[in-house]
Amino acid sequence: MQNQKRVVVDYVSPTLNNGEFPIKRVINEIVHVKAYVLADGHDLIGASVLFKHENASEWTELRMNPSYDNEWYISFAVEKQGFYDYKVTGWVDHALNWQHGIIRKIEDHQQVSSELLEGVGFIDAIIERVSDFDRGYLEHLQNVFTNKDLYDNAVSEARSDRLNHIFYSYPVKQLVNSSKVFQVYVDRLKARFSTWYEFFPRSASKKKEIHGTFKDCERLLPRVAEMGFDTLYFPPVHPIGEVNRKGKNNSTEAFEGDVGSPWGIGSKLGGHKDIHSELGTIKDFKSLIKKAKKMDIEIAMDFALQVAPDHPWVREHPSWFKWRPDGTVQYAENPPKKYQDILPIYFETEDYKNLWKETLDTFLYWINCGINVFRVDNPHTKPFYFWNWVISEIKKEHPDVLFLAEAFTGPKIMQQLAKQGFTQSYTYFTWRESKHDLIEYVEELTKTEQREFMHPNFWPNTPDINPFHLQGANESKYIQRYVLAATLSSNVGIYGPVFEYMIDESLPNREEYLHSEKFQITNYDWSIKNNLINVITKINKIRQEEEALQQTNNIKFCHIENDNLIAFYKWNDDKSSEVLVIINLDPFNEQHGFMQLPLSDLKEIEFGRPVQVYDFISGQSYNWYDEWCYIELQAELPIHVFKINK
Amino acid sequence: MQNQKRVVVDYVSPTLNNGEFPIKRVINEIVHVKAYVLADGHDLIGASVLFKHENASEWTELRMNPSYDNEWYISFAVEKQGFYDYKVTGWVDHALNWQHGIIRKIEDHQQVSSELLEGVGFIDAIIERVSDFDRGYLEHLQNVFTNKDLYDNAVSEARSDRLNHIFYSYPVKQLVNSSKVFQVYVDRLKARFSTWYEFFPRSASKKKEIHGTFKDCERLLPRVAEMGFDTLYFPPVHPIGEVNRKGKNNSTEAFEGDVGSPWGIGSKLGGHKDIHSELGTIKDFKSLIKKAKKMDIEIAMDFALQVAPDHPWVREHPSWFKWRPDGTVQYAENPPKKYQDILPIYFETEDYKNLWKETLDTFLYWINCGINVFRVDNPHTKPFYFWNWVISEIKKEHPDVLFLAEAFTGPKIMQQLAKQGFTQSYTYFTWRESKHDLIEYVEELTKTEQREFMHPNFWPNTPDINPFHLQGANESKYIQRYVLAATLSSNVGIYGPVFEYMIDESLPNREEYLHSEKFQITNYDWSIKNNLINVITKINKIRQEEEALQQTNNIKFCHIENDNLIAFYKWNDDKSSEVLVIINLDPFNEQHGFMQLPLSDLKEIEFGRPVQVYDFISGQSYNWYDEWCYIELQAELPIHVFKINK
Repeated sequence: MQNQKRVVVDYVSPTLNNGEFPIKRVINEIVHVKAYVLADGHDLIGASVLFKHENASEWTELRMNPSYDNEWYISFAVEKQGFYDYKVTGWVDHALNWQHGIIRKIEDHQQVSSELLEGVGFIDAIIERVSDFDRGYLEHLQNVFTNKDLYDNAVSEARSDRLNHIFYSYPVKQLVNSSKVFQVYVDRLKARFSTWYEFFPRSASKKKEIHGTFKDCERLLPRVAEMGFDTLYFPPVHPIGEVNRKGKNNSTEAFEGDVGSPWGIGSKLGGHKDIHSELGTIKDFKSLIKKAKKMDIEIAMDFALQVAPDHPWVREHPSWFKWRPDGTVQYAENPPKKYQDILPIYFETEDYKNLWKETLDTFLYWINCGINVFRVDNPHTKPFYFWNWVISEIKKEHPDVLFLAEAFTGPKIMQQLAKQGFTQSYTYFTWRESKHDLIEYVEELTKTEQREFMHPNFWPNTPDINPFHLQGANESKYIQRYVLAATLSSNVGIYGPVFEYMIDESLPNREEYLHSEKFQITNYDWSIKNNLINVITKINKIRQEEEALQQTNNIKFCHIENDNLIAFYKWNDDKSSEVLVIINLDPFNEQHGFMQLPLSDLKEIEFGRPVQVYDFISGQSYNWYDEWCYIELQAELPIHVFKINK
Repeated sequence: MQNQKRVVVDYVSPTLNNGEFPIKRVINEIVHVKAYVLADGHDLIGASVLFKHENASEWTELRMNPSYDNEWYISFAVEKQGFYDYKVTGWVDHALNWQHGIIRKIEDHQQVSSELLEGVGFIDAIIERVSDFDRGYLEHLQNVFTNKDLYDNAVSEARSDRLNHIFYSYPVKQLVNSSKVFQVYVDRLKARFSTWYEFFPRSASKKKEIHGTFKDCERLLPRVAEMGFDTLYFPPVHPIGEVNRKGKNNSTEAFEGDVGSPWGIGSKLGGHKDIHSELGTIKDFKSLIKKAKKMDIEIAMDFALQVAPDHPWVREHPSWFKWRPDGTVQYAENPPKKYQDILPIYFETEDYKNLWKETLDTFLYWINCGINVFRVDNPHTKPFYFWNWVISEIKKEHPDVLFLAEAFTGPKIMQQLAKQGFTQSYTYFTWRESKHDLIEYVEELTKTEQREFMHPNFWPNTPDINPFHLQGANESKYIQRYVLAATLSSNVGIYGPVFEYMIDESLPNREEYLHSEKFQITNYDWSIKNNLINVITKINKIRQEEEALQQTNNIKFCHIENDNLIAFYKWNDDKSSEVLVIINLDPFNEQHGFMQLPLSDLKEIEFGRPVQVYDFISGQSYNWYDEWCYIELQAELPIHVFKINK
């Protein structure tokens, strides 16, 4: 009931929902902690951040620095995967307060004998704890402060920086008060920095209209690696339902030979733990995973929690589906539309614990096959708390496993999935096109609370989205879109050959591909090269070299006097990598304008010296002497990526 | 571990520190609750606010309304003093979702026999709970939905608004999820609306250099009442220390006859529970309280937790003070300054429980004498958690008691005291003079979180602060300052005769009064009238009549094309009172300019009709036909207070 503490610790940041969710970081990232630390009266106070990894037994303490109006701050780095705890603690520092007072009295020529005796008390309280070196000094002070003949000496020593340093280093924390304990979840770097390539394995064959296999995919691995992608994502590779299978272009009628949608999972041949036999065997799949790994490519698996009507679960676990009064099963629907090839899972089932467990087992099965990255299909149509549970269960044993949420839904739902545990999130980048919209969106992602828990992943296209602005677009536009995605965001992905070969036929007035690979096999001549592929390859290489592009949050848009030119400055935490990107958003015309360099943000530019920049794209170097620089970009090669080096 | 709930409730507002502190309201005020209520998938959801007074056993439920992107809102009124609990709850509404779906299928001409059977299930689930009238209708539907011959009828009834209304009114809440429980603390109206007058009782005598008494104060009550003040605050009325008593003008030497500072509390004649004998007896004090009450004036008592060296506590409770190594007691100090007439309380004492208890007893003693309002001196030099405890202990039995925090300190400290329990707070208004500074400060108080927990009190002056802008100021400036304080803020106060008689002599280059009443008796001719007194009286009367001025948060500053003119619109919650205040901030010159009426905020102005306004000050009425109105104000009477009436 009665709390004698004098210090109040308040408004610790960054935190999420008062600690209900951890904030997120990757290995070696920084947590900039701020808090209000207040006490009554005018006494000096001290404050620390205490943090520890979940496996550590001891807290690490970092003293916080005061800024204005009782705000304190300090940063700590997280060096291991898993959970870290952190809290802020504060106390009244009577020893420093004593020294602060006696200095002012001495300067005012007051007699301070009694104050010196008080000082001895503060020395006595810590002398056992200090280093041997400091102890000698403190013993000396004990003598000086209590010997009247040494008063002048005492008056001088009482003010010493060394005593100040010792008092600061060994605070006596009485009536200490702490915030609650908050958490950071730390992932491997890939959570923040990844370069995705998606294609349909069944389209991998060299031969026309022949169903591709995992073996065919192995053939394509060097191409993917050369282009600089590190994550290869396949649509579902499980048996495809035969009942109510979809035909080409999403037709409800399938004909002989129609391959159906890979998202219509499950047939008499198996379900979520099985491999679609036309792709090969589980052995083939594991071989592919292994070979990819050798090229530093991880295979990302699609995880779609829905079934075809002939999925084994329907027979084995009827209670996992909803049954209607007329005895039929509930199909997926968005009235008046019905999806006859898909049954949704009934998460309100009383048997939900077994359902959850089977889902977890399915994840673990594929993890044991070598999968460490999952792209989860429509996670927003399954309960948030289910994801929280299943992801945290997996992470306990497999902290390397990452989850990309495919949730093209409302912003708060998208954010909630990230809070509940998803590592990365698809975003609205796909529809952000103008300079204003791009800046507004990136500012929202990087300057609000979202920066603490969401790793955005920017996709210019997906098999589901052929955005209007790419339909009929020229190569410049495609270059723009990839460079924007890959430099604004450190996580980026494309839906492969369709993107680099600019195949953009669509259903009329729809953002959907005509002859979509979702419903049929496509054959590509994967050997064709073009300028777009060169740019993608180049940009991916720069991303590998420059840490500034391996993170998303450190970004500042630069003033540039032309709405067709977008410019931004990015840097890594220690500013050993600084990059300036400028993109011409007009795919048809040259654009030029004056750009303002973010001079006050650049790391240590010596006064009077030019800013030296190197353009990765043109290979040219420049010396910029002025804050405002003239920029000119052609439509054909609409980008500068400047390395800033001093 | 496993939580099957589908709805997430997040970001409930208003709340403070995730519910660590209650938000504050006064009786009949409104709490506008907002929350994110999300669910997976596309099902319709329902959300409610549940609230109850601490003495109520049942929750009251109010359904929330959805706005965009999963935000929900509703308001509730708090009608009683004390604590209310409130929380937000959400659920998936399967019945409404069913109706939503079947309507779309019917419009698409689908056969819905099976859906009708599902509808019967939703009707069965609620039929026992509904009114007899509705039950008849539902029984009819049960029949219609299950009878194939009545299919057309069923298709029509399934879409009925009446069924929609019944489903909405009787939701089946499965897997319901709720936020944590938050609290509102509700005070009497005076917490928000009060008009303070301060004078020194010892200056109340008619006779020169004679110590005023409570009896003299009684004589002045009608004057205070006529000017429209409802709270009369006296500096401490306890015995004044004789040891190290301060002389005139804060001199460390007191001469025979010097009366000392009333804040140097305690002598051989008594302490915090005693009356300074020169003012009268406890009986006189109680009589004064009673007579004031009859004129609707409450006496506010000063509560200063500090003592003179001869206060009885020093003898009786030496451990409540800090003793130095040389055996002397610790005086108040702010090095190098020492305050030899004051000992601070040592709140870190091990005997703190008795100290806290004695403080509580002291409050209760005066409450039993009839005091319901305390002005607490320098609360920021005593621990926050102490105030939290003592105020909440008092409020349990005496919810009418109000506490004004005199904490002219950092913003976060000031705010913390309000959060920890203080009802009202002195503010920085005293130093906010320009249009820009006034608007910025009032926006901070009324548009940030502070609006939820702080009742500001605006004082143009206090015995401690004779602001530079009032030194040598003319009457116009005094009028300005009072009108600003009394119309911007619903709590206002002045340090009496010194203000209305514009006595402004100061210590050189200090914001302190010369010949301060803190250290000597002053005699006034209280019968003198002037224009300033007339304006104060008038403004206080308008405040009584217009509820718009009895609250602070509903305020909108109006554009006015002159930096010497400030204009703002205020309204009460139901807009039965709307007021527009315009003040000329230039004390020497007429100012004019065009002001933009806040037309979109005014209550129901009929299209094409003028805005009719009545100026309380000039007594004139105007019809404004345009959005931009010409305003002209003389320096002599620099105010308009318009009542907006339609």
